[in-house]
Amino acid sequence: MASKREDIEYLEYIFSKFYDIGANSYGGVTRLGYTKVEDDMHNMFKSLGEDEKFYTYIDEVGNTYVANDISQKPYYLMGSHLDSVVNGGRYDGVAGVIAGLLILKWAKDENLDIPIRVAAFRCEESSNFGKCTIGSGLITGELTKDDIKGLVSKTGRHIVDIFYSNGYSLNPKKIENVKQYLELHIEQGKVLEEYGIKVGIVTDIAGPRRFEISVLGEAEHSGATPMDMRHDALCAASELILELEKIGMDESYRKSVTTVGVINNGPNVLNVIPGDVTLGVDIRGIDTDSLDKIESYMKSTIREIMKKRNVEIFAQDTGRFDPVKMSSYMQKKLIESSEKLKISHKVMPSGAGHDAMAFSKICDTAMIFIPCYRGISHNKSEFSSLLSIYDGCKVMYEYLKGEQ
Amino acid sequence: MASKREDIEYLEYIFSKFYDIGANSYGGVTRLGYTKVEDDMHNMFKSLGEDEKFYTYIDEVGNTYVANDISQKPYYLMGSHLDSVVNGGRYDGVAGVIAGLLILKWAKDENLDIPIRVAAFRCEESSNFGKCTIGSGLITGELTKDDIKGLVSKTGRHIVDIFYSNGYSLNPKKIENVKQYLELHIEQGKVLEEYGIKVGIVTDIAGPRRFEISVLGEAEHSGATPMDMRHDALCAASELILELEKIGMDESYRKSVTTVGVINNGPNVLNVIPGDVTLGVDIRGIDTDSLDKIESYMKSTIREIMKKRNVEIFAQDTGRFDPVKMSSYMQKKLIESSEKLKISHKVMPSGAGHDAMAFSKICDTAMIFIPCYRGISHNKSEFSSLLSIYDGCKVMYEYLKGEQ
Repeated sequence: MASKREDIEYLEYIFSKFYDIGANSYGGVTRLGYTKVEDDMHNMFKSLGEDEKFYTYIDEVGNTYVANDISQKPYYLMGSHLDSVVNGGRYDGVAGVIAGLLILKWAKDENLDIPIRVAAFRCEESSNFGKCTIGSGLITGELTKDDIKGLVSKTGRHIVDIFYSNGYSLNPKKIENVKQYLELHIEQGKVLEEYGIKVGIVTDIAGPRRFEISVLGEAEHSGATPMDMRHDALCAASELILELEKIGMDESYRKSVTTVGVINNGPNVLNVIPGDVTLGVDIRGIDTDSLDKIESYMKSTIREIMKKRNVEIFAQDTGRFDPVKMSSYMQKKLIESSEKLKISHKVMPSGAGHDAMAFSKICDTAMIFIPCYRGISHNKSEFSSLLSIYDGCKVMYEYLKGEQ
Repeated sequence: MASKREDIEYLEYIFSKFYDIGANSYGGVTRLGYTKVEDDMHNMFKSLGEDEKFYTYIDEVGNTYVANDISQKPYYLMGSHLDSVVNGGRYDGVAGVIAGLLILKWAKDENLDIPIRVAAFRCEESSNFGKCTIGSGLITGELTKDDIKGLVSKTGRHIVDIFYSNGYSLNPKKIENVKQYLELHIEQGKVLEEYGIKVGIVTDIAGPRRFEISVLGEAEHSGATPMDMRHDALCAASELILELEKIGMDESYRKSVTTVGVINNGPNVLNVIPGDVTLGVDIRGIDTDSLDKIESYMKSTIREIMKKRNVEIFAQDTGRFDPVKMSSYMQKKLIESSEKLKISHKVMPSGAGHDAMAFSKICDTAMIFIPCYRGISHNKSEFSSLLSIYDGCKVMYEYLKGEQ
């Protein structure tokens, strides 16, 4: 087996191969799901697998796999994604994929007799289609053709056309023979860094509930319309934004969060009162009661604002996942592995959604978190050290050895 | 002189000539200043003037003039503009220009010996460059090259390039020999309609103060960042929007209004906390004390929000006009004219800015308002009847006859 230094050098090498793909001139990357840039990421992953003489293949929805053994069934699946948000970072998703490659390499070097496949799933981020985990969702049956067929990308391309032109299927065969699913991911929060802990072992993944909210007021001249005669859609939307922040604060003791990440204003010119505002709302938590309370507060607030301001507000569901629990067996074994290796660990929930959510429905599933700088993610300043990825790999590899 | 019916038909005819220029498929028009669409509007105006054998010419910044006499000096100038906001209406500006053509026609039919010029000024709306009354401002000296040279259009064209390619000058000769300036405009408010009054005689024009406000928070993962660790730029902006609405309400007894018409959010994706929001703020009023109070409240609110939320907020001045008074002499004479004609009138301030603002600094200036449907303007539903334009023309023509 290679030395630690050689392992870090290998991680550095494979990380660097993805570095320039989708890079923005001012730092950060834009690697939207089901675009040419994501194709380039997957091709690079495949070629890195081929360099090590692993088996590689692509499934019916474009997910890419690198495997040490495709004859033994069932197998262990490790994975993550290679797409990013707009102006995102280089570690979200990629960390888990390169971790898988390093673990495969160790397993080969040590002739570990465990069938391992590493997957890169398509379009985990909701940034391009307003829907997340499309690649892993379709092959696990979490998402169906009906959930997907109406989606349109940020540049106006229909997903149906994209699938057609790539020869993908919206009705893929379900993935089979996965014994366990294991994913390493950057935390995307500040907890591990603040506690000075090397790996997080995930207990639950928060369930997002998403809404597109349209506020319809009246676009009128900003100078000639007295304040008391207005139906300003942006003021109404601002009130809703602050109420959503407030209920999120109130429910933070139950680990819920609320975010308005998207706002589009019409006509969006200086001398016209906004007549038409659309908001994208993202509510997350691991406690269904808390999520229900937030959603019901949002809806009653909408009714109040409509009445008070004489505007129309429509809330449309755009996505809804229940919180999911990770395998207790795997959590326990991962804890034992980190203890054995003297790599500090903390059990913790995941606020962000991950491909692991889709797999938790079909097999035992676990996640390992590693720290990232100041918790920043989805941003060009996102950073995690290769040493952190290495620590996570050690714990996962120790776990796999225990499964032998 | 033609019959009333023929006059209305003439108004209908010339109004219809502009109808399709810049028309949107879903109603309304987009005729942004210093674009090809505005050029088409000006060419049509020129050609309508030529049809009646009037003198026509274009000045150094692209304003177009139609005149019955270019030898007598000083002369009476009537005017308005032919540009619109994005998805605007067909009467804002155009009403004043076609009123001028009808009055010129009457003066010709009756051999009225008064030199009248009708002007269509360029780029009265701030929608394209974030700056209003560019055409009238430049030729009256209200705006200088320094105010203009940095402007960039909505599509990214530099005004310097536009002026260069059209042969316009950013340092035009100041307009001379204007004895009085008179502008007919739709009210863009609901007062005349609610009182059932046919013309408004304007006392003051509200002075706009405009700001571009940048809010810098931190773009982080919406799921993994606890509520109490966020620096959400959109929540901070929402708080400012509602405080601006509140101070506008508080100051409405002094006829001031506040509007946030523009909001741009970055990165504007569902699973990222907004990191960077820009607002366009428009404050208007006829009372300088009230405007000062609003501006100072806005600035202290910004300081409080910065402190409370640990975000950075920068407010940049993007335009500032003092409220202006219309000529008392002309107001008095216009009141007498409407009384003589038994056309009901009301003296009132203008909340909206107009080209008349620029002229009030160099000559006696007056404005006539006509009602518009429900006060709606800057919107495809904008409507004013040709009969209202006709009533306004009668009052203005009666006034001009009194000047003979």
